[in-house]
Amino acid sequence: MLPMHRSVNGDRLQHTLEQLAYYSDTPAPAMTRVLFSPVDMAARRYIRDLCEAVEMQIRMDAVGNLFARWEGVAPDLAAIAIGSHIDAIPYSGQFDGTVGVLGAIEAIRTLQGTGERPLRSIELLLFTAEEPTRFGIGCLGSRALAGVLSPAELRLLSDETGEDFDTVRLAAGMTGELEDVRLPEDYYHAFIELHIEQGPILEREGIPIGVVTAIAAPATLHLTVEGEGGHAGTVLMPDRKDALTAAAAMVLAVEQIAATNPSPDAVATVGRLQVFPGAVNSIPSSVQLDVDVRDIQGPNRDAILDEIRRRVHEIAEERGVKLEAVLVNCDPPATCDPRLIHVIEQAAEELRLPTQPMVSRAYHDALFMATLCPTAMVFIPSHGGISHRPDEYTSLESIVQGVEVLVGALKRLAW
Amino acid sequence: MLPMHRSVNGDRLQHTLEQLAYYSDTPAPAMTRVLFSPVDMAARRYIRDLCEAVEMQIRMDAVGNLFARWEGVAPDLAAIAIGSHIDAIPYSGQFDGTVGVLGAIEAIRTLQGTGERPLRSIELLLFTAEEPTRFGIGCLGSRALAGVLSPAELRLLSDETGEDFDTVRLAAGMTGELEDVRLPEDYYHAFIELHIEQGPILEREGIPIGVVTAIAAPATLHLTVEGEGGHAGTVLMPDRKDALTAAAAMVLAVEQIAATNPSPDAVATVGRLQVFPGAVNSIPSSVQLDVDVRDIQGPNRDAILDEIRRRVHEIAEERGVKLEAVLVNCDPPATCDPRLIHVIEQAAEELRLPTQPMVSRAYHDALFMATLCPTAMVFIPSHGGISHRPDEYTSLESIVQGVEVLVGALKRLAW
Repeated sequence: MLPMHRSVNGDRLQHTLEQLAYYSDTPAPAMTRVLFSPVDMAARRYIRDLCEAVEMQIRMDAVGNLFARWEGVAPDLAAIAIGSHIDAIPYSGQFDGTVGVLGAIEAIRTLQGTGERPLRSIELLLFTAEEPTRFGIGCLGSRALAGVLSPAELRLLSDETGEDFDTVRLAAGMTGELEDVRLPEDYYHAFIELHIEQGPILEREGIPIGVVTAIAAPATLHLTVEGEGGHAGTVLMPDRKDALTAAAAMVLAVEQIAATNPSPDAVATVGRLQVFPGAVNSIPSSVQLDVDVRDIQGPNRDAILDEIRRRVHEIAEERGVKLEAVLVNCDPPATCDPRLIHVIEQAAEELRLPTQPMVSRAYHDALFMATLCPTAMVFIPSHGGISHRPDEYTSLESIVQGVEVLVGALKRLAW
Repeated sequence: MLPMHRSVNGDRLQHTLEQLAYYSDTPAPAMTRVLFSPVDMAARRYIRDLCEAVEMQIRMDAVGNLFARWEGVAPDLAAIAIGSHIDAIPYSGQFDGTVGVLGAIEAIRTLQGTGERPLRSIELLLFTAEEPTRFGIGCLGSRALAGVLSPAELRLLSDETGEDFDTVRLAAGMTGELEDVRLPEDYYHAFIELHIEQGPILEREGIPIGVVTAIAAPATLHLTVEGEGGHAGTVLMPDRKDALTAAAAMVLAVEQIAATNPSPDAVATVGRLQVFPGAVNSIPSSVQLDVDVRDIQGPNRDAILDEIRRRVHEIAEERGVKLEAVLVNCDPPATCDPRLIHVIEQAAEELRLPTQPMVSRAYHDALFMATLCPTAMVFIPSHGGISHRPDEYTSLESIVQGVEVLVGALKRLAW
């Protein structure tokens, strides 16, 4: 029996968004919440407390994914999963990921308010490290759940200070076995992620709800350039093998290759570049940089990646520096489940909210959940298309509309 | 009366060089000794202990310059100063600066061994922060002694963590008045700095002693590029104002301008470049970089600097990013004193050590001491011309020869 309509509590949702924003290593609105940092641990505790307050059953796996289950009438049936992430890259915004977690909790509270228990359990998922900040790889938690990142591969990860993932997660109290993280194929009946668009389309078109049909394929290439250091005053220009000038040529090549690719959706970015030893009067001896490459079409993304690899090796050869290029990740794009897309469209239609099918250019944990179970995403507008910046903004009205759609979809899927 | 010849004690000198190398934040041979860090403080203590052991009178000024005086028979006459620095940029070598300090102490010990006191006092100078690592400006101590850096300018300096110089030096126990640091014009009769060449010429020519005739003019330009941050997946290439791709174009322009300048001595280096926010999946919103520009001829150096400024502003305009360019320092070249040059050549000749007049492409505290008193420098060979790297190397034999020349020069100047 479908529960009666009870509207989402916007004030309550707003309050939790504001509370969560206190847990940041930079003052609001600039969010910085890096995996297993003290503020990340405190923010996780806050989410856990919210879930425990509404009597959900909590479980944490060995990589820190948090599962909060509202048990259904038929607990043996595969559950419906909803959720997102709360980690935030340095100096980013308040809405990326968080609306999917706090919105999911609000959806569950709304449904609990009807007094009717679902048939299938509804499980909130808080994914570990959707952002690649600490260990250089995005969607760490959902990759591990899907078995895309194996326990052996997890053990090879280390952060910038040289601490390995296993040590860090154990120190953070995630004491389970890495071998137990991967979920069985029939564990979930469906997964829906509510998320801000992080692009300009919905706002520009005046459409409140985006229904994601596919998620673009990201790849990350880590480059280490080794030149020859020396004194900035005494080594003359023809005798230099400057690692930074070589890296600068690579940065420009990456930009040029993406900008001239026929696909308008092709993007390539060097977001991180570190110079060693990094002294004003010292010629750089080595540089580390990460190249993020994306396109909606997997094969075109791979072609761009190949061209970047070829060109950076050419630059290294021309300049007599050594280059090591490691492909950190290179994921296939995901297609959303047609049945779930239909359910979301129906839920929106019932609420008289116009929808638009769209592609997600940002990647999300849904990319890896799609390999485990039928998956879909609900997008809500991002003001100015801005994301990963302190001025990232989505109105409470938009967030509430997204949660209402999530509630409607859950009613159709779990009852 | 000139003291009898008593030879320099190479073993004793070697021992002090090895002892000093223990004070480093990176394992030997990679030296890292940043101003007022715990290892810098401990290394200063070591130098002070060496001086106190031979009954020199110690004074420390408000910026941390250390003065150790072996008082002469006529203490009212202006003293002869010798010395250099012991701070070391990250991952640099064991000989830059240190041979000038420990060599000066060994020279004084050698002269003390003759049993004859000099007429003029001989003063060892340990300069604060010859390297620009912490506060972005080189020769901080000697600039302050010469009045080139005023107390007001010192108070404006801050390090990367935002700590200002005044707070840092007070915390390090340098409690004097900044207004008392500047030395009077007649304070020293002469200054001689013994230093490794940091270039390949002496080794290549097989000449043990370089007599510096002029010191090249360094300038540092600090650039702040402000673009627009955003999500590396969702902001398409034509919509970007990436601060790092703009900075990369500037790095290549700096290189190209120096490499194509008609002067073979013209060098320009970007040794430090920092990307903000520095996340793999975030378009860089701002970049800070330092450009070090040098040439033996001041006017040509200034012309190169002007061209770099013009070109980086053009790049900023072409790419729609904001650029702030601050000239951190722009010093005139120094000419060494002809009479002191002659004294050094005589001392070397007496020791049957061939000499070669040469220009210093690296800057030194001597650059600023030259504005206070007659100044000269003694160079000894650098293996492979390498400096500011862990494999920087000068043989003990070369160092001893340099100290012998210093001893000979002091005999001529102080007796």
